Amino acid sequence: MRAAVLRGGGVHVRDEVEEPVPGPGQVLVEVAACGICGSDLHFARHGAEAQALGARMEGVPRPSRGLDLGQDVYLGHEFACRILEPGPDTEAPPAGTLVTALPFLPHPGGETETIVYSNSTKGGLGERMVLAAPMLLAVPNGLPAHLAALTEPMSVGLHAVVRSGIEADGRAVVVGCGPVGLAVVAALAQRGVRTIVAADFSPARRALAAGLGATEVVDPRVDSPWSRVPRGRVTAFEAVGVPGVLDEILRCAPWRSRVVVVGVCMGADTWHPYFGLNKELSLDFAIGYSPDEFGATLHAIAEGLIDVAPLVTARIGLDELPWAFAALRNPEEHCKIIVEP
Amino acid sequence: MRAAVLRGGGVHVRDEVEEPVPGPGQVLVEVAACGICGSDLHFARHGAEAQALGARMEGVPRPSRGLDLGQDVYLGHEFACRILEPGPDTEAPPAGTLVTALPFLPHPGGETETIVYSNSTKGGLGERMVLAAPMLLAVPNGLPAHLAALTEPMSVGLHAVVRSGIEADGRAVVVGCGPVGLAVVAALAQRGVRTIVAADFSPARRALAAGLGATEVVDPRVDSPWSRVPRGRVTAFEAVGVPGVLDEILRCAPWRSRVVVVGVCMGADTWHPYFGLNKELSLDFAIGYSPDEFGATLHAIAEGLIDVAPLVTARIGLDELPWAFAALRNPEEHCKIIVEP
Repeated sequence: MRAAVLRGGGVHVRDEVEEPVPGPGQVLVEVAACGICGSDLHFARHGAEAQALGARMEGVPRPSRGLDLGQDVYLGHEFACRILEPGPDTEAPPAGTLVTALPFLPHPGGETETIVYSNSTKGGLGERMVLAAPMLLAVPNGLPAHLAALTEPMSVGLHAVVRSGIEADGRAVVVGCGPVGLAVVAALAQRGVRTIVAADFSPARRALAAGLGATEVVDPRVDSPWSRVPRGRVTAFEAVGVPGVLDEILRCAPWRSRVVVVGVCMGADTWHPYFGLNKELSLDFAIGYSPDEFGATLHAIAEGLIDVAPLVTARIGLDELPWAFAALRNPEEHCKIIVEP
Repeated sequence: MRAAVLRGGGVHVRDEVEEPVPGPGQVLVEVAACGICGSDLHFARHGAEAQALGARMEGVPRPSRGLDLGQDVYLGHEFACRILEPGPDTEAPPAGTLVTALPFLPHPGGETETIVYSNSTKGGLGERMVLAAPMLLAVPNGLPAHLAALTEPMSVGLHAVVRSGIEADGRAVVVGCGPVGLAVVAALAQRGVRTIVAADFSPARRALAAGLGATEVVDPRVDSPWSRVPRGRVTAFEAVGVPGVLDEILRCAPWRSRVVVVGVCMGADTWHPYFGLNKELSLDFAIGYSPDEFGATLHAIAEGLIDVAPLVTARIGLDELPWAFAALRNPEEHCKIIVEP
């Protein structure tokens, strides 16, 4: 089958990739739509750095399946798929059912792999993949596949907002309106938060933020988002993931503010703890989502509570992936590009 | 009168300092004892850096009283004093009463100054100073002045522990056993926390930590404090304030751990947000204390619940301050040096 891979800092399409075979508890599916995540672009360039940091990190179980960046790396974790056939002794929805799923794949040894970057496990940027039967969620309400594929990135925003604990009368500042920042804005609006100030250099991204419920949008070259919130504590979301951004948030945030870091920075960053200390700030890092958050997001999209259609700026085939990776570096042109393999 | 000042990176004793005069709501006191704080040493060397960061920082009111590091800077914020006389229209305890106080001085304009580093407001490293009448706490139980002076630094530890929200069944790792780390250990023990692992390079400091209630002490050159806590989330306290320490905590802390930053780092630091993100860590910065925490700490010391006597490794006069600033750079020799002006 055909599938995209990361290799040597770029993305390539392979024509003769081994077909995935579903094991017990797994289901073979045909990928109907898969989004390109900003971290895919980032990992293509900075994968070695991230891998080196991961190898140094303690306090979490070390995955037994090492990743060889010198080999092809399969990817794609924002997918909607149609059921083809279940593996041995496995129950699954009828063939043809449109599903999405949390990108987790339990293996017989007991370890659960995240379907994200792998030399062997196929992701959503290919024709077919296997999913874990217990992770499947049928797509309701006739929601098209290219919108159902946004369940995953939008869940990241909901998780960050849940983790922040912000209430409706809270004041939110969202720094960065890429897909992650936009997902945060949408989740804040869903939660009824009445002050949502979103900042991004790009007019197109600011327009998307306003459409998803930001109550005010700011170009940080022109104005400070911090000047647009009433006095008092703020809940800020760092959704850029570029060195220096978090330090600037710490410099500006009011006393006792909470900063949720949801942008993915894979390198070293320089900051001044002094800002955090003198203002008694709090930081919470947020990654991923719970099954509940994932399901709630799918239903919010399918019921029209969150309109993700404007985020999709292109729908392409596998062959156009190298173009898409280049195009996504211009925030004015594209937000979420969906691949329909 | 005589008082110590910071100037040109060092500490000096001046013989002819203008006498402080209590205004309305203020009380003139004679300093009986005043501790030297680690941040005094740090500020002597890095004051300009801290001042530059403070000038850049937003989100807090900017103090109207600028500090000129080219002039003498008065200091001393860990004091116990005897009442001399109240200012105009002010009620105060009888002359001779031993008191301590939160180091805050309200000014007629409405601004409240922290008694910490000032070109004009005298601190505890001098013969006399003025305190705000509402901030005074009489020292109970005949507690001697040189121990009452430890109320302030020990309160910093209580505040950090309160801010952490740790419960008795929580697992604490305290990185750094200088006075701040020791104050954290004491407050954790007071709170009944059953696992308190304290780490420091210095055997003398580790012995003090054990005496204050650490259930295990570790030399990080020999062993990792993280190997000494049961599996699961940890509440870690960064009580060193030196670049690199926080990143090492983020690298090692288990998934969903909380890190309370109470060490004062006045410079830039390099870290990897990737560690925090992948393990969904939380950081809370803690500085200072509330009046309740200050009062509770005074009573815990006076009632013998926290034995601070072993922390006091020298009692000196003003003239010996330059020696003390040098001596405190060796953690094996000294912990808390008390000046009795």
